[in-house]
Amino acid sequence: LRGGTDKEVIVMLRIGLFGCGRIGKVHAAAVAAHPRAELAWVSDPVLDSAATLGDRYGARATVHAQEVLDDPTVDAVIIGSPTPTHVDLIAAAVRAKKAVMCEKPIDLDIARVDACWKEIAELSPTVMVAFMRRFDRSIRALRDGVHAGQIGQLEQLLITSRDVAAPPRSYIAVSGGIFRDMTIHDFDIARFIMGDVVEVQAMGANLIDPDIQAEGDVDSVMVTVRSADGALCQIVNSRRCVVGYDQRIEAFGSAGVLNVGNHVPSTVSRGGPGFSTSSDGYVEAWQERFANAYHAELDHFVTSVLAGSAVSPTFDDGRAALLIADAATQSLISGGQPIRVVQDA
Amino acid sequence: LRGGTDKEVIVMLRIGLFGCGRIGKVHAAAVAAHPRAELAWVSDPVLDSAATLGDRYGARATVHAQEVLDDPTVDAVIIGSPTPTHVDLIAAAVRAKKAVMCEKPIDLDIARVDACWKEIAELSPTVMVAFMRRFDRSIRALRDGVHAGQIGQLEQLLITSRDVAAPPRSYIAVSGGIFRDMTIHDFDIARFIMGDVVEVQAMGANLIDPDIQAEGDVDSVMVTVRSADGALCQIVNSRRCVVGYDQRIEAFGSAGVLNVGNHVPSTVSRGGPGFSTSSDGYVEAWQERFANAYHAELDHFVTSVLAGSAVSPTFDDGRAALLIADAATQSLISGGQPIRVVQDA
Amino acid sequence: LRGGTDKEVIVMLRIGLFGCGRIGKVHAAAVAAHPRAELAWVSDPVLDSAATLGDRYGARATVHAQEVLDDPTVDAVIIGSPTPTHVDLIAAAVRAKKAVMCEKPIDLDIARVDACWKEIAELSPTVMVAFMRRFDRSIRALRDGVHAGQIGQLEQLLITSRDVAAPPRSYIAVSGGIFRDMTIHDFDIARFIMGDVVEVQAMGANLIDPDIQAEGDVDSVMVTVRSADGALCQIVNSRRCVVGYDQRIEAFGSAGVLNVGNHVPSTVSRGGPGFSTSSDGYVEAWQERFANAYHAELDHFVTSVLAGSAVSPTFDDGRAALLIADAATQSLISGGQPIRVVQDA
Amino acid sequence: LRGGTDKEVIVMLRIGLFGCGRIGKVHAAAVAAHPRAELAWVSDPVLDSAATLGDRYGARATVHAQEVLDDPTVDAVIIGSPTPTHVDLIAAAVRAKKAVMCEKPIDLDIARVDACWKEIAELSPTVMVAFMRRFDRSIRALRDGVHAGQIGQLEQLLITSRDVAAPPRSYIAVSGGIFRDMTIHDFDIARFIMGDVVEVQAMGANLIDPDIQAEGDVDSVMVTVRSADGALCQIVNSRRCVVGYDQRIEAFGSAGVLNVGNHVPSTVSRGGPGFSTSSDGYVEAWQERFANAYHAELDHFVTSVLAGSAVSPTFDDGRAALLIADAATQSLISGGQPIRVVQDA
Repeated sequence: LRGGTDKEVIVMLRIGLFGCGRIGKVHAAAVAAHPRAELAWVSDPVLDSAATLGDRYGARATVHAQEVLDDPTVDAVIIGSPTPTHVDLIAAAVRAKKAVMCEKPIDLDIARVDACWKEIAELSPTVMVAFMRRFDRSIRALRDGVHAGQIGQLEQLLITSRDVAAPPRSYIAVSGGIFRDMTIHDFDIARFIMGDVVEVQAMGANLIDPDIQAEGDVDSVMVTVRSADGALCQIVNSRRCVVGYDQRIEAFGSAGVLNVGNHVPSTVSRGGPGFSTSSDGYVEAWQERFANAYHAELDHFVTSVLAGSAVSPTFDDGRAALLIADAATQSLISGGQPIRVVQDA
Repeated sequence: LRGGTDKEVIVMLRIGLFGCGRIGKVHAAAVAAHPRAELAWVSDPVLDSAATLGDRYGARATVHAQEVLDDPTVDAVIIGSPTPTHVDLIAAAVRAKKAVMCEKPIDLDIARVDACWKEIAELSPTVMVAFMRRFDRSIRALRDGVHAGQIGQLEQLLITSRDVAAPPRSYIAVSGGIFRDMTIHDFDIARFIMGDVVEVQAMGANLIDPDIQAEGDVDSVMVTVRSADGALCQIVNSRRCVVGYDQRIEAFGSAGVLNVGNHVPSTVSRGGPGFSTSSDGYVEAWQERFANAYHAELDHFVTSVLAGSAVSPTFDDGRAALLIADAATQSLISGGQPIRVVQDA
Repeated sequence: LRGGTDKEVIVMLRIGLFGCGRIGKVHAAAVAAHPRAELAWVSDPVLDSAATLGDRYGARATVHAQEVLDDPTVDAVIIGSPTPTHVDLIAAAVRAKKAVMCEKPIDLDIARVDACWKEIAELSPTVMVAFMRRFDRSIRALRDGVHAGQIGQLEQLLITSRDVAAPPRSYIAVSGGIFRDMTIHDFDIARFIMGDVVEVQAMGANLIDPDIQAEGDVDSVMVTVRSADGALCQIVNSRRCVVGYDQRIEAFGSAGVLNVGNHVPSTVSRGGPGFSTSSDGYVEAWQERFANAYHAELDHFVTSVLAGSAVSPTFDDGRAALLIADAATQSLISGGQPIRVVQDA
Repeated sequence: LRGGTDKEVIVMLRIGLFGCGRIGKVHAAAVAAHPRAELAWVSDPVLDSAATLGDRYGARATVHAQEVLDDPTVDAVIIGSPTPTHVDLIAAAVRAKKAVMCEKPIDLDIARVDACWKEIAELSPTVMVAFMRRFDRSIRALRDGVHAGQIGQLEQLLITSRDVAAPPRSYIAVSGGIFRDMTIHDFDIARFIMGDVVEVQAMGANLIDPDIQAEGDVDSVMVTVRSADGALCQIVNSRRCVVGYDQRIEAFGSAGVLNVGNHVPSTVSRGGPGFSTSSDGYVEAWQERFANAYHAELDHFVTSVLAGSAVSPTFDDGRAALLIADAATQSLISGGQPIRVVQDA
């Protein structure tokens, strides 16, 4: 690592960002707000996108990813480019001795994920997968409560995740299916709370958007998962929720229950003839719901890299979530067969 | 007491009811449902009212109150007749050796209340004033929590009481004013939780019903009260609340806070575009909100009388609440002067 | 029907009750409180049980069920005896021209259920299955809201049912398994809200009570169900919930969401250092949670029988729920295979 | 105004900050985060405080306030220095043609406030008083709802404001008393929602901190206020709330009710034996509760000054709140007399 001439004086982590789209902008803003991080480069195949974002935060802009990796003053990179580019960028960045934070999923193809790891494993890479929900204050508090024994033995985990509106057909076409694209967050959260998963059953339906069906995907799913410790978990997903962005978790155990509820934009409630409370809908976007998480995630990455300590969630966490998504996909395709999940490579 | 030939075998309390109107019916139903009480007589100047209610519960009906008092098998009476009749019925019932439960207020005129007490004091009367809210499960739990020290030292008490709709002008005309008619419940609850009251300030307004103003009364009031222990209390009343029957209490102390919330008819909530929860309004009537209280109140009366133990709230509690109502009235009339409350007769 | 000499004057339904155990007492109390029903007979193989309950409500008591059926003044019977006795009592009662309300399940064996129906079908029987949850005010409001289109098209239904504590091993031994004993209520509610079911997946675990495992049953289950209309449903059951009796429903649709929450014993909440609200746990027993439902259920039965109109849920509703329970059992036994449900006899 | 050589190109407002203490730091951070504002100067009598804050945000630091005012590139100033310095700084800044945002209160002495205004009135000053609560998303939504008629005619307003812990005696000594220091925020919010105030009653007590009593001040107050439109308002204040920073508002009207609730740090709730929900306490500090408000407040100031449009709340709003605080103080000193508020200078 560098950022100065001497380890003692390194106080800022210089970061290069790949991808200047929707998620790239979220990361750029988080870097700009972090007291110990600096946005050195932004890179995007579309020069205008890179230039605009670079101007906003005083970073250099390029269409050539390699230019970022060649800059010896860059300590770390954030990969927010399209999924198919992830594994190559990870490998190149690791070879260039950069610490890496990569958006989920690592790849849609487990074979490519494994090949990537094989390529970088010996380089002692620092690769973090950006499952930002793990850094949400409420989710983390629930998980810490479970691990601290607040509910005794965990028996049942219920995860509800519903997006506000379905993405366009073009997005669905390259998404890898709902399990690898959307439920993968919930699979990761399930592992975060209950540990490894050994069995998956899935049921899906097309209830919302004919375009999704036309792409061979489903828009509403219910998945049941069994953990290695024997606990059960249900995950409910929908591509549309008119009330807002719906993200809730219930952890139920032998001694109690912990819940994470939705965020609302204000604390205003109303009453009138026939109703006693009525607040705003839930917040409308994952950017708002998980705003705190993106900052906490980046802080973990920056702090860990500067300190030379381990990052988490790891490359292997990203792989494990994809394995569960693959199993769920297989269950769905097979008409609901229960599928064993084997996590060893 | 009787109800049988020997005290050991008295298991049922035979009760006579005065007044077969709205509140009389509530009491009659509670008596009928109580395993150790029996409705022996109902009395009302309107024979039809008495006969109908008597038929429904298998009780004898009469227009002559004295007939009830003359029945030696009657152990106790419940006075639910119009306020001006209370003190005479109390005195007559006490002279006839009956235990008495009397609706609030004892009378609108403190002089008549004191005269009544003077008349019966030497007869060791059993007279309970029917402040049923003291028996509500939630209010009692709050009060028990305060007394058990759950919130440390009580510092501030906030009572909100709002009726669904203003009563007719004819009712207002004989009500004695909002403080003696409506706020008197809150004054009693204030005493129930924080003890005796030493100072009152009141502000009122006519915002709802011109008929109330025409009767020289107000329909919206805010009262501030200081307890003998130094705690402060605010009471908010309104004669109209379109959301439903609004009854809430907050007890705030050095170590925490206790709240009693409203009752709702169901646990259903809804969400849709722009709103995340919307339940029914509060329950629509005091009969439903305090249904549990009427049963618990009667149970206390029946159990205490059968056991020969003291009843509560006492005649003196009824008098004390009236004294506070008088002080609040005086404060209002004087344009908001603070009024000292002296509770010794 | 009778209860008088002429149909016009029938105002009271005379009811015979089979079974004087826990559920029998609940039904007896409901009958006693109903203005148009009268408890004529109680019957139980244990004379003491019958005699005690009969005394309490002024009903005749017998150990001979046939004595009840032979009484021509009895209009209807309620069957609350052990499950293996249900089908014979249904058939005998129908032959005796009595209207029948029978506890769930009709029987644990679908073949016996079908044989029973075959026996009585031609007698135009009035047989109602006592799925009391359909009569709960909140559940009914949710269902009516769904059917009225408040949430647009129903897409996902989530049902959580958790008992306070596991029953004794002796109960488990004859229960028919968790799906036929406990989840059957949820299967019925699923049908009540979303209509017929076509597919079931189940996952179960032994997390709570070794006695349940010793009986070959599971204590924690997650079931996914698909309706004929294409909606998905998840059901979560646990035999133990330390917070109280946990009964919640979420109906999620294209235009909104409806929820039924838990009941709590009071509306008191608390705050103190480190916490902002803390109410009592949920109510502790199904008798309290569904107290309103037992009265509403009986009212529907009494009113319908007196009016000669159809009762619901029907015998066939009882059969349909058992079919789903059988399918869930089969899915569990097969290690999680998806099972088709075919509802035609 | 300037900030560039030509009005068309002015995109940044250059701001000087007076006072580098607790509130000064909050303002400095808000300026730094605002896309169209730039912190040009920070000034504090303690050079270290100024230098440290200036370094952090790249602003020049000085102990001489006049140096800031003499800089022609400075467009606007924020006054966050001690209250006694406010009126002189306002006057000097206005004379130097700077736009001003001044912390509340303008001064503790209404005579000095009026003298200040007299001095600057002819200079068409841009002076905004920093009642930041007006910019809180929830409070503004409540007020907008009231003004939009969502609750019909406003009848009763209830404001609860409780700090987490009492300030030190040294702070109390120069605070001007609880009404001018703490309740002044609530008086402003009352005016924000219900308009001008015509009458005040106050009751206070010493329940928390002997130091406050030693300074001749009270720590717990209840104030009743009447608006010019006839609505009633109750304000409850406490210097200590162990649950957290307690800030709630209820606006009750002829057609409904609107409430602003407390903020909590997470959406986690818990259940266990004997309790069904328990979240964290409220947020611990006004900086967190009103974080959104400080940004929105600054945005209003910056946007208005850049656009040349009017700022609000105005100098006169600051004066009006102080007049109510004076009246409340007079009511308290007089033992609770009702005091008329006359708002004309």
